[in-house]
Amino acid sequence: MKNLYVSIDPYQVNRIKSFSSSQSAINFATRVTPGTAFDAYGVGKVVVSGNPEFEEGDLVVGLITWGDYTVAEPGAMLRKCDSMGFPLSYQVGILGFSGLTAYAGLFDICKPKKREKVFVSAASGSVGNLVGQYAKLFGCYVVGSTGCNEKVALLKEKLGFDDAFNYKEETDLKATLKRYFPNGIDIYFDNVGAEMQEAAVANMKTFGRVVVCGVISEYTNAEKRAAPDMLDVVYKRIKIQGFLVADHMSVYQDFLQKTCNYLHGGEIQVLEDISSGMESIPSAFVGLFHGDNIGKKIVQIAEE
Amino acid sequence: MKNLYVSIDPYQVNRIKSFSSSQSAINFATRVTPGTAFDAYGVGKVVVSGNPEFEEGDLVVGLITWGDYTVAEPGAMLRKCDSMGFPLSYQVGILGFSGLTAYAGLFDICKPKKREKVFVSAASGSVGNLVGQYAKLFGCYVVGSTGCNEKVALLKEKLGFDDAFNYKEETDLKATLKRYFPNGIDIYFDNVGAEMQEAAVANMKTFGRVVVCGVISEYTNAEKRAAPDMLDVVYKRIKIQGFLVADHMSVYQDFLQKTCNYLHGGEIQVLEDISSGMESIPSAFVGLFHGDNIGKKIVQIAEE
Repeated sequence: MKNLYVSIDPYQVNRIKSFSSSQSAINFATRVTPGTAFDAYGVGKVVVSGNPEFEEGDLVVGLITWGDYTVAEPGAMLRKCDSMGFPLSYQVGILGFSGLTAYAGLFDICKPKKREKVFVSAASGSVGNLVGQYAKLFGCYVVGSTGCNEKVALLKEKLGFDDAFNYKEETDLKATLKRYFPNGIDIYFDNVGAEMQEAAVANMKTFGRVVVCGVISEYTNAEKRAAPDMLDVVYKRIKIQGFLVADHMSVYQDFLQKTCNYLHGGEIQVLEDISSGMESIPSAFVGLFHGDNIGKKIVQIAEE
Repeated sequence: MKNLYVSIDPYQVNRIKSFSSSQSAINFATRVTPGTAFDAYGVGKVVVSGNPEFEEGDLVVGLITWGDYTVAEPGAMLRKCDSMGFPLSYQVGILGFSGLTAYAGLFDICKPKKREKVFVSAASGSVGNLVGQYAKLFGCYVVGSTGCNEKVALLKEKLGFDDAFNYKEETDLKATLKRYFPNGIDIYFDNVGAEMQEAAVANMKTFGRVVVCGVISEYTNAEKRAAPDMLDVVYKRIKIQGFLVADHMSVYQDFLQKTCNYLHGGEIQVLEDISSGMESIPSAFVGLFHGDNIGKKIVQIAEE
């Protein structure tokens, strides 16, 4: 296949660490060693096929590699791609695992009720921006945290968040969240971990739910760890739950139908941050950890 | 009422702290200030009654005070006590909130399957010893941690735990748990928090459940905090959940019936540690934090 679009995701950094206790647990996060290619979610076009299910020119979506071409082995996690009239890049973001992650984490794990108060961190990121939008469309009150004022404005003005703040301008995150949620948080969608998670737990309401989607601030700093107050966890009966989207494929049809409807109705905004060319992958990847991206980071490797 | 038996519980220490963010959340943990009496679960006998539902000589169970007598206000959390032929002290422990806490935390929150691997900390404590016994009777594999070798022997020889260890003799709790659970832990019933919770999370299987019942090691040391690796929580889809027994009264009848059956059949051991006299309350209470008690700590204030 000729690779067209490839998804740039923070979790990949965990695959190049020398050791993680969890790496052996799941095959998509197995260690990448020097000399082997990264595999990543993306869209490609079949150039030559020895498999009767795929023909030259077919668009496919699934695990491709960081490179110009992918050689798919039998049994590869790939399927034919139906763009449904949307830009092909959507397959990598809002209609791909980023969208499904946001949808499943919010609805399948947290089971929100209308008017509940939702806090999402890394709120202009690939998953966070969709969590906030889904929660708003569902009828929740949503506040997001992000790392610059331009993104704060975007969340409030373009994405319809009820409020948003720049965490880099705050010195006491517990007090910050108290200001934005004077009566407490029902759901915290955690994309960052560390002190933000601690501050959120301190501000949770009773029966609050913390869904841990990722902890980007801890990925590149082994010293950083969330140490939420377990007295809060007990007394407020808080649930902290990690998840991987692959366990929630049961909501896929529901996710796809709702999201397509929102897209057709113009009710959901698509935040894509697309770089061009194979050679931009390293900087795109590193940029994730500096907050360079706004929305889903994608590299377009070739023209369709 | 004349007070007969009073339960001595670690959580009470949180009520005498100058501040806890969670204290306002629940009324049983409101702050105790100098000059006011501690209320605590216990058994008393009515001396004089202005309430037609209670007569002189009735045994009652519920919230009494640390003292010789309790004056119950209308609406007090008290009910007539049916000892069901068991020693009256059982009402304060195995047939009271300690038993229900163990039962609800294990079955209602963790939903064990037969042959799952269960780890319980403070395993010779009031709740821990029953968690282990319930889990064994249900068909799980159970290992407990405790703070002295005498208790280790008790867990293995008298209570039927599959294994047990003295955490004070271990230098690397992660390695210790790896030794006792080479294939991982399904359920961790946490009574202690801090580094033991971190070690347990590091050793959880995928879809492992950590139920946080209490964190006694953190109660008296504000510096101590569990900082479980959130990468483990995400990749292994771990759930960490706090609970309070009062939310699980729906399992009360089931709990009571099963526990009475186990008691009649001699299948469950009752570990009680009873001191005598009002004046022993302070040392009994302080002793909880030094591991002095074996099983449920109770003070008998007066003869029946």
